[in-house]
Amino acid sequence: MNARSRGRPAGGGGDKRGLLIAAARRQFAAKGYEVASLRSIATDAGVDVSLVSHYFGDKAGLLVATLELPFDPIDRLESALSGDRASMAQRIVRTFLTSWDPHREVFATLFRVNVAAPSSRSPLIDLVREIPATFLAQRLEGANRQLRALAFASELIGLAAVRYVARIEPVASAPVDDLVLVYAPSMQVLLDP
Amino acid sequence: MNARSRGRPAGGGGDKRGLLIAAARRQFAAKGYEVASLRSIATDAGVDVSLVSHYFGDKAGLLVATLELPFDPIDRLESALSGDRASMAQRIVRTFLTSWDPHREVFATLFRVNVAAPSSRSPLIDLVREIPATFLAQRLEGANRQLRALAFASELIGLAAVRYVARIEPVASAPVDDLVLVYAPSMQVLLDP
Repeated sequence: MNARSRGRPAGGGGDKRGLLIAAARRQFAAKGYEVASLRSIATDAGVDVSLVSHYFGDKAGLLVATLELPFDPIDRLESALSGDRASMAQRIVRTFLTSWDPHREVFATLFRVNVAAPSSRSPLIDLVREIPATFLAQRLEGANRQLRALAFASELIGLAAVRYVARIEPVASAPVDDLVLVYAPSMQVLLDP
Repeated sequence: MNARSRGRPAGGGGDKRGLLIAAARRQFAAKGYEVASLRSIATDAGVDVSLVSHYFGDKAGLLVATLELPFDPIDRLESALSGDRASMAQRIVRTFLTSWDPHREVFATLFRVNVAAPSSRSPLIDLVREIPATFLAQRLEGANRQLRALAFASELIGLAAVRYVARIEPVASAPVDDLVLVYAPSMQVLLDP
């Protein structure tokens, strides 16, 4: 568990946490992730707004909770971000693959449901917008930081789409080490142009 | 028109071409792209098999024809592949974006229909398998050529998924020049590690 980890508290409060998640799902669906405010979500849930940061860290953490992912992608990303700068892409690609490989069916289903959605209002798309903008761009230096952070995310998505959804060889069955070897040097260029 | 261009012939033969496309659609759907043979497609169409290369160049060209794309992606790729090696990724990214930007709705629809398909048998997935394996890998040198060629394609797909399908800013509205500037140096590493 790292410092940021937003966990299920050891005892009590589970109900308020669940009420917040249910309200967030309603509000994100009705208004969209960017418009729905933490205050309106807390009001909808009948819970004090300060509990959002207590349970979820921030709005992105609340979004992650609504998706019921098999792991917390923000915790994983933050672990991968810390450490030697020159091997950051290596760590992120490896963390992404070792996190999702055991859940490739979950990824494929999430991808299909969210991409196939007739509306462009999708929690997975919100997550792809939010994570690079909030957690990666601030670590970058130089020009076009937001664009480079999202480009980095898009290359990971392309990898995952081919490995988990379309399942095209040789990417579908390649060992994680081989994929890290091939993708990381390419993606590192986006972090340090 | 380049040397490879597979065109609609100036006169006559349109019917045989159409019969081949219809038969290819049937055979690809029934057997899958890799299993369906040109001979069985020609037999199904009641047309001599030699006409496949005449009209479509090869099996990949026939697959492209069944998709009724707004342009021929193989012709475009081959134009982009010719020329200075060090700027190959630049040319491919620019060609891809200037080809698809005017048809972003077509891309999004193709992507949704093919990715959302319950079966993994999809002509777009066949195309993503076939184009890098056939046209790009042979231009590469060094280790992991098939993997690097598909990785290159996957990064383009990630870009297109974010720009045309999910429409996430700042990638969705960025000028082509900015995207070439950001993506091409990253993707060039896959061509020349």
